Amino acid sequence: MKVEMICTGEEVLSGQIIDTNAAWVANELMSLGIEMQYRTTVGDRLEDLVEVFKYRSQYADVIIVNGGLGPTSDDMSALAMAKAKGEELVENAVWRDHLESWFTKNGRVMAKSNLKQALLPASAVMVDNPVGTACGFRVKLNNAWLFFTPGVPFELKHMFKEQFVPFIQAEFGKGENTQLYKLLTIGHGESSLADTLSALTLPTGIELGYRSSMPHIEIKIFARGNSAIKQLPKVVEEVKSVLGHAVVADNKATLAEEIHHRLYQSGFSLAVAESCTGGMITSQLIDFPGSSSYLQHGLVTYSNESKVKVLGVSPQILDDHGAVSIQTVEAMAEGARALLDNDFALATSGIAGPDGGTDEKPVGTVAIALSTKQGVYSQMIKLPRRSRSLVRSMSAAVAYDMLRRALLDEAVIVDYPSIGRFSK
Amino acid sequence: MKVEMICTGEEVLSGQIIDTNAAWVANELMSLGIEMQYRTTVGDRLEDLVEVFKYRSQYADVIIVNGGLGPTSDDMSALAMAKAKGEELVENAVWRDHLESWFTKNGRVMAKSNLKQALLPASAVMVDNPVGTACGFRVKLNNAWLFFTPGVPFELKHMFKEQFVPFIQAEFGKGENTQLYKLLTIGHGESSLADTLSALTLPTGIELGYRSSMPHIEIKIFARGNSAIKQLPKVVEEVKSVLGHAVVADNKATLAEEIHHRLYQSGFSLAVAESCTGGMITSQLIDFPGSSSYLQHGLVTYSNESKVKVLGVSPQILDDHGAVSIQTVEAMAEGARALLDNDFALATSGIAGPDGGTDEKPVGTVAIALSTKQGVYSQMIKLPRRSRSLVRSMSAAVAYDMLRRALLDEAVIVDYPSIGRFSK
Repeated sequence: MKVEMICTGEEVLSGQIIDTNAAWVANELMSLGIEMQYRTTVGDRLEDLVEVFKYRSQYADVIIVNGGLGPTSDDMSALAMAKAKGEELVENAVWRDHLESWFTKNGRVMAKSNLKQALLPASAVMVDNPVGTACGFRVKLNNAWLFFTPGVPFELKHMFKEQFVPFIQAEFGKGENTQLYKLLTIGHGESSLADTLSALTLPTGIELGYRSSMPHIEIKIFARGNSAIKQLPKVVEEVKSVLGHAVVADNKATLAEEIHHRLYQSGFSLAVAESCTGGMITSQLIDFPGSSSYLQHGLVTYSNESKVKVLGVSPQILDDHGAVSIQTVEAMAEGARALLDNDFALATSGIAGPDGGTDEKPVGTVAIALSTKQGVYSQMIKLPRRSRSLVRSMSAAVAYDMLRRALLDEAVIVDYPSIGRFSK
Repeated sequence: MKVEMICTGEEVLSGQIIDTNAAWVANELMSLGIEMQYRTTVGDRLEDLVEVFKYRSQYADVIIVNGGLGPTSDDMSALAMAKAKGEELVENAVWRDHLESWFTKNGRVMAKSNLKQALLPASAVMVDNPVGTACGFRVKLNNAWLFFTPGVPFELKHMFKEQFVPFIQAEFGKGENTQLYKLLTIGHGESSLADTLSALTLPTGIELGYRSSMPHIEIKIFARGNSAIKQLPKVVEEVKSVLGHAVVADNKATLAEEIHHRLYQSGFSLAVAESCTGGMITSQLIDFPGSSSYLQHGLVTYSNESKVKVLGVSPQILDDHGAVSIQTVEAMAEGARALLDNDFALATSGIAGPDGGTDEKPVGTVAIALSTKQGVYSQMIKLPRRSRSLVRSMSAAVAYDMLRRALLDEAVIVDYPSIGRFSK
């Protein structure tokens, strides 16, 4: 089944709003094993709408049309569909009644313009919208069923789940089973990952995809059909074994999510002392509800004075070794952990740029330490100096990964592809 | 000039990532006075790409093609363009040299797959990419120039500004002069802003647009033509006077940027003590290079123990009033400011949800304080409880605005539309 989407509305086309409906629909389809094949976004111009309905209906089996069902003059999806089909708009008595009782129930007087929302193309099958005044409908044109949905996300979601999914399943059957497995990596570029993995022979029905979401590249391992799904765990293991330390999480969107998942209600507690990452580690963890079960504080000691005063770093260490050094970052981690006697503390100190680098410690030099009840682990790494935010987010990722490895009782310090390290 | 966009890539089509590039390009075009007319999003299927290039090039004058210039097998924009045009791919020697020196400069070995990035359609004009390995190019097909840009947002932005804009201006002329003024607001919904501003009579050539970028709604005041541009300052003042305290910044993307701009090299110093905002305030400021000139530390004291130990909040205050209270947040701000004798300190403590609310202090209750050398200002507000991240980002916005108003010597505590407040 070829499914497409047509998004309408000047505000989506002109970038006034970002089209989250399109992404939501595509994700829902994927979870049903259906791939979105094509998407067209058009503004509020009648001739463009008519043209796109006529044109895409030659190729698709089903087209989800989103938006343009409102009462105002720039809402013209029904009119455009009628023109594309060469038929009249006809008032739908059921929807007119529905509108009138909707307004009565909500204690409002119906504006004349709302009656427009009951006008459907003559051959349309009405599709109920239990949560709004915009009437959905579907029309067959050329090869395709065009299924018209409201632009309001809440209304779209109801109609999609309650009306669209049963419709396509009745019309086209359930389709092949699919499954998606995601691996999160650090320290590899997209092309270097693809090169490394091109050596693998993949079973039929399994495909690899890559998505850059810095500081990570996500590998998507997609299996289509029951035989491919059965092979998926084996392929996942092969990919992991080829990539080694570069794989840092399974089916998680970020390393922060992985750490949250491992620490939440584990009984372990964490303190964070951040300099160059500047609150990023702390803030990403606190994004998750329940993080208060393990995270007691995150101290962003950006100045040397604060490192001394808040974390108890000795001024001598700062004088002798500088703020960006193994010695300082170890003292930061130990100081942060000692304050509330936590199980773990992470500390970062580095040169995020664009200024502040020296020959000895260029922009991208970052010291990271993990303090535990058993001892302190630290490393000073060289990150690509491409941007301040990349240095910060990669520092956070390496810090998270040190903690992740400690929680798994694995070696805390490991080599990542393309991340260099200073000797102590 | 009819400008369209073709976005490529399975990850955009399938909703794995939301297409922010499309919105960014449309916004940039609008600021040049050019309307985006049509957008097609296709996956990594060669025949779909070939078809869409052939088809849309009959209608558009210029098509910005985004993505598919990478080194992997699912990057096929150049190949598709060559097929659409009926010509071969040819290695571009200039780009091959560029690639080799790029990898050498970055101390990396070029993967074989990268050579693919130097293959362009025979009739293509190379377009430089100073910040990446993906080569841009443009090709004329039917009525249109197709202009190929990389999918990496950072690279796209460089190429758009440095290459695309000069190209269309040389090819199609400058068009009418336009000017865009942006106001950042808090506490108003998009429709309530539009309703409030519908009372204004706008001069010909001036249009208002709205963009939701939570916790803000941005108002774009767009002037087309010299006469409208002359009227723009007057319209900006009218809008500000109608909206009052809801307007919190002029021509800034975020309130954090506004605060950074005001504090940077001002001689004033800032400390931050965060609970519910969890590092968001600190982290957003540290995003800006140079923030170390005023920000000495940001202490995310998430637990009560940390508030006592790090900030010196009295356990009695926490016992008597709770962590989310005017008394606690004032003690947090004063404690944070006193540690290094800073000029200002911001503190937040609230219930971000989804759990943790009570009848007396429901989810969305947030206490915020600003400590200055002259005294402490505080308020306890009621935020919409729609999501954890919205509660946190709106809390940060109100905190920033208190500091902004103090820096301007204006009343620190003011009413914002749709944000409620508890009496002390």
